[in-house]
Amino acid sequence: MSLAAFFTPQSVAIIGASTNTKKLGYAVLENLVHGGFLNDQRRVYPINPKAKEILGLKAYPSVLDVSETIDLAVIVIPYAIVPAALRTCGEKGIPAAIVISAGFREAGMEGLQRERELVEIAQEYGIRLIGPNCLGVIDTVSLLNASFSTGMPPSGPMAFMSQSGALGTAILDWAQAGRLGLSKFVSLGNKADVDEADLMLAWQDDPSVRVIMIYTEGLPDGQEFIRVARQVSRKKPIVAVKSGVTLAGSRAVSSHTGSLAGSEQAYQAAFQQAGVLRANSIQDLFDQALAFAYLPELHSDRIAIVTNAGGPGILATDALSRAGLQLARFDPARMQALEAYLPDAASAANPVDVLGDAGADRYRFAMEQVVADPHVDGILVILTPQATTQIPETAQVVAEIAGQASIPILACFMGEARVQEGVEILDAHKVPSFPHPERAALALKALSTYRNYRQRPLPEYETISVDRDFVRTKLDQVLSEGRVSIGDPETRGILSAYGFQIPPSQLAETSDQAVAMADEIGYPVVMKIASPDILHKTDVGGVKVGLENAEDVRDAFDLITYRAQRYLPDARLQGCLVQKMVPPGLEILIGMNRDPQFGPLVTFGLGGIYVEILKDVAFRLAPFSRLEADAMLEEIRAHALLDGFRGQQPVDKSAIIDALLRIAQLVIDFPEIAELDINPFVVYEKERGGVALDMRLVLTPNEHAPVSETSHDLAESVR
Amino acid sequence: MSLAAFFTPQSVAIIGASTNTKKLGYAVLENLVHGGFLNDQRRVYPINPKAKEILGLKAYPSVLDVSETIDLAVIVIPYAIVPAALRTCGEKGIPAAIVISAGFREAGMEGLQRERELVEIAQEYGIRLIGPNCLGVIDTVSLLNASFSTGMPPSGPMAFMSQSGALGTAILDWAQAGRLGLSKFVSLGNKADVDEADLMLAWQDDPSVRVIMIYTEGLPDGQEFIRVARQVSRKKPIVAVKSGVTLAGSRAVSSHTGSLAGSEQAYQAAFQQAGVLRANSIQDLFDQALAFAYLPELHSDRIAIVTNAGGPGILATDALSRAGLQLARFDPARMQALEAYLPDAASAANPVDVLGDAGADRYRFAMEQVVADPHVDGILVILTPQATTQIPETAQVVAEIAGQASIPILACFMGEARVQEGVEILDAHKVPSFPHPERAALALKALSTYRNYRQRPLPEYETISVDRDFVRTKLDQVLSEGRVSIGDPETRGILSAYGFQIPPSQLAETSDQAVAMADEIGYPVVMKIASPDILHKTDVGGVKVGLENAEDVRDAFDLITYRAQRYLPDARLQGCLVQKMVPPGLEILIGMNRDPQFGPLVTFGLGGIYVEILKDVAFRLAPFSRLEADAMLEEIRAHALLDGFRGQQPVDKSAIIDALLRIAQLVIDFPEIAELDINPFVVYEKERGGVALDMRLVLTPNEHAPVSETSHDLAESVR
Repeated sequence: MSLAAFFTPQSVAIIGASTNTKKLGYAVLENLVHGGFLNDQRRVYPINPKAKEILGLKAYPSVLDVSETIDLAVIVIPYAIVPAALRTCGEKGIPAAIVISAGFREAGMEGLQRERELVEIAQEYGIRLIGPNCLGVIDTVSLLNASFSTGMPPSGPMAFMSQSGALGTAILDWAQAGRLGLSKFVSLGNKADVDEADLMLAWQDDPSVRVIMIYTEGLPDGQEFIRVARQVSRKKPIVAVKSGVTLAGSRAVSSHTGSLAGSEQAYQAAFQQAGVLRANSIQDLFDQALAFAYLPELHSDRIAIVTNAGGPGILATDALSRAGLQLARFDPARMQALEAYLPDAASAANPVDVLGDAGADRYRFAMEQVVADPHVDGILVILTPQATTQIPETAQVVAEIAGQASIPILACFMGEARVQEGVEILDAHKVPSFPHPERAALALKALSTYRNYRQRPLPEYETISVDRDFVRTKLDQVLSEGRVSIGDPETRGILSAYGFQIPPSQLAETSDQAVAMADEIGYPVVMKIASPDILHKTDVGGVKVGLENAEDVRDAFDLITYRAQRYLPDARLQGCLVQKMVPPGLEILIGMNRDPQFGPLVTFGLGGIYVEILKDVAFRLAPFSRLEADAMLEEIRAHALLDGFRGQQPVDKSAIIDALLRIAQLVIDFPEIAELDINPFVVYEKERGGVALDMRLVLTPNEHAPVSETSHDLAESVR
Repeated sequence: MSLAAFFTPQSVAIIGASTNTKKLGYAVLENLVHGGFLNDQRRVYPINPKAKEILGLKAYPSVLDVSETIDLAVIVIPYAIVPAALRTCGEKGIPAAIVISAGFREAGMEGLQRERELVEIAQEYGIRLIGPNCLGVIDTVSLLNASFSTGMPPSGPMAFMSQSGALGTAILDWAQAGRLGLSKFVSLGNKADVDEADLMLAWQDDPSVRVIMIYTEGLPDGQEFIRVARQVSRKKPIVAVKSGVTLAGSRAVSSHTGSLAGSEQAYQAAFQQAGVLRANSIQDLFDQALAFAYLPELHSDRIAIVTNAGGPGILATDALSRAGLQLARFDPARMQALEAYLPDAASAANPVDVLGDAGADRYRFAMEQVVADPHVDGILVILTPQATTQIPETAQVVAEIAGQASIPILACFMGEARVQEGVEILDAHKVPSFPHPERAALALKALSTYRNYRQRPLPEYETISVDRDFVRTKLDQVLSEGRVSIGDPETRGILSAYGFQIPPSQLAETSDQAVAMADEIGYPVVMKIASPDILHKTDVGGVKVGLENAEDVRDAFDLITYRAQRYLPDARLQGCLVQKMVPPGLEILIGMNRDPQFGPLVTFGLGGIYVEILKDVAFRLAPFSRLEADAMLEEIRAHALLDGFRGQQPVDKSAIIDALLRIAQLVIDFPEIAELDINPFVVYEKERGGVALDMRLVLTPNEHAPVSETSHDLAESVR
């Protein structure tokens, strides 16, 4: 349902409007009355059982006493009576409510129960709900200030949603100082109903919004967030700060993949796949938003610097280079024009140094040359306040040229006291300016990243032909036995059904069986301990390779069994797996664990020390496209190993990509698969494919089946 | 010689003092006259051949016409007549001169010549020189403003030296806005005489300086900088911005080590070894300096957060954690006191959330509890401007408690318009405050890093007993032949003389010789192509291992020679090296290249892909101590491999450390060694040592010896 009633209502009721100027119910009413919202068509109804009139407006005991239609209710009353008030709103047919009152989910179990009650009432009457426990909503276009914040922020093309109301007050305070122009501000509070995805959808086609800013502490419906953000980010940039990134490490995990892939990795993958720009701090969020709000697109990454000082020019060069942008190489004609005009000691190459005695005219000439150069995609203008520097005049020149330019122009006026007048002129003309070149470079980088996001094709998800029924039957059988951890032999069947090549192998319970199987499979063979309780077989001496004959096999069986028993006396031993020995190749790891917010997070890395010591891995949330899988291969630091190194042949990348896509399909088809590791997957030269050598799989227990003790922790860990 | 005359002169002559208010010579004089410098004891002498009086002071045609002693001359005249003026200063016996005039080294070869002339004159008369091409010098304690900057910055405990005068104007402008209190400001200009090391020494015992700030674009005498900074950083923190870090990549290099170790790595190692804190931007420089200027020592890293908002508390937690600091765990008694006093919904654990409705009293109670907790080493106080927040009152409380505390207390008042009054109170009371928690966290991190620097023992350099004479003779012989690149066989002798274990080997020129040598050495052997022109032997198929008998050796000789000729027809082939095959171990790389500014930069990393693809290496400038060498081993990402991985035995770390120290000694003993690689050095289990398997060494050519063409480039690259 449309959220329009929250932003452009014709009539608003304040339930809990107060005559006491110290109460929030008064503050909200005052903001509505004095914020500019009221006009000939619009109505505000104070709801107060005792008052006759507040702030010159007639007050009503209940919304039911108002005869006209009400579009929006703002609820500012003690938590205990909020549910009843919301029900009354439903009876009145009010389509939207902002619950400012606290005392819900954030206040413990009882509050959570009360919040659930709110949601039920809202659903019953079809009311959309913002909050509870929030600061309110501001729309600077309709002049609606349905919040208890102090005053109205300056209007502009930024829209901000914040899970933290307190941070919202700081944001509004920054905005009031003049640098940030806000179109909408929404304090989301507990997000009982309206959440980030709803607001992105509501703002995606709103012409008053050029950039969407998000502060979030968590995205419970992460999959929906990705789905919506991927769509909205095609239309306008979304910049988000996610806090709590370093608190995640405490979740108990049992697999390689699990220890590599925490909540932080899931957010990283989610934002990247959804095209959401990640800001590392509120300052970074503002800096990026400032660029998106007021600058045209950055078509390519060739940046020109115009400066009146060499040192800051070098700092800017460093910063651009660190941000992955390029220094433009000027057209020879432009260079010549600059050389002819500028004094001898000036630099006509990039960075253009107009020298310390440059007046506004010299800046103008240099900028006019550079802005007309087709090899320049963006300009950073730097000014230091030297003896004869014309600060306001230069700001005027920058503003004038930026106003006509079709490429982004940013300014960096370094200093504070003397440059202030120039900065104010830049602000007034909507030229994004930053006190330090490093911040300007990061803002330009954001433009570049967003352009790259938009240029990506929309992901196309493939469906590979697999034997899904086989896996369904197998998993049902395992779950019905109350097991959640599946060993190598069973996982082999599941992966085979999804098209993985797995060398022939059999489970031997005695050494005689092992010899018979090896004779059948053909030498050389590998033997591995088979136990659902032993995850890292090599660590317990549970693997022997290159067994050439019956005697080797017999020795290996006894040795492996003895070691496993000594190392883990309580482990359930199923015997030894006798497997055809495969030729050596490059060992990689493919894994999956299920993020509680975003779902299946697929991991790729090279095997052994690359994952375990160097943590050199790439992540994507399933589903992902073939292109996205391909990008995972390029993301690891050691990716050159895939292309051959020191005379090695390049490996069969398409086999890895195929394996990643099959795993993604498997874990989407079967949400009960909680964790999965293939380690190693051995990949061979081009067109030779790869084989899954060792693998394990953990299920989320079926709620109705008996669950063994060890599985319980795992179930907890995936919620 | 003391630099006191630059900062506390009793009499100053301005050579080039002007009556024209638009000239720098007028601006400097005006700053001296109106900056507060003049009093009963102090004199300022305008030197101007035409004027009788300027700004009420008697003018003199020349310093020689002044009968009194002159302590400091400020020279602001056209460059052509600067040398003559400086000579006059010498004749007058003036001990210190600031040359503001430009037109020297920065203006090309002629200017460079002129600058050399200045230096010669200065040396002849014993004059210390700041500049030329600078902004001047400011001392806010003696109220000396011998610069053409506008006005005097606020005084305080920071001292700033800048290679860029233009950046200096921005710094002074920031200072004038009120946040930075400067004790001294020096614009170093071209650093013809006085440089960073001189000023660090001059300021190390100055009680008006608590923190030394440096902006530099290059340190030509890098070794001296390290020597001085290491000493001064024991007394007070030094924070430096080095610009131009990303421009370095263009130097031509031929070795592994060279491609890994650029100027950026040398600066990183130099600052780290000298105890200099690196700032990544001017903003970061200010933030760190603010903390050092006004805060007591951070004794350990346990930080408490007191906040009136959950979201910013999480942001701060993230930021502290990213900075490597810890969240303090409170004393149970403190927790109980907080719990008893604070409202139910508040958090008494760290971060302490005093809630959005907290007044100044609640902040006071929480801070008093936390500051008294022995488990807390520092406090970050966060405020968001909520409806009832008492902003100035809370600032007052923070200032009061911070003023009495023996631990660092920083503030983060988020917002701009409403919080401004609070921030001003914090500024007035010298409580470092930051608009965002991330910046506060980095400032705390700087305190932590500096404490760690100071706690390091001073490096003790060992001298290992080696055969230095052998190497001297060998190198003289090579250089006399006009060679600079030395192959494996010769390098083996040099490294053996410095105590390296090298498996027995001999150079065979024919396959018959090779067989005879292998028979003598004993099988199995390894054979490698011997050519000064082939650096990566494996790449050309120039290495064969595991040769078991005479036939293998004969085949290998022919194969290796054939391949080398095919791959590099012009390479000089000396034959094949026949070497005893050593047992396998962990392969590491030890290397050295000579940085033009800082000298010998020693590299350590694991061999093969670890250095070549992952660039996983650590650097130190020689000389370094055993402790510093030990730290190199811990710095690489893959350091866990040294401790044994997956059942491997830990390697003999002391053998690696010993090898690093021997290499450091070698390259210090012989400055003509320009580059050196040992790759691989094979290290074995504990107490089993290691062997150098393959090695190469490049010399800087002797200036008097004939130089072959290939060596010329190398000589260029090391200057």
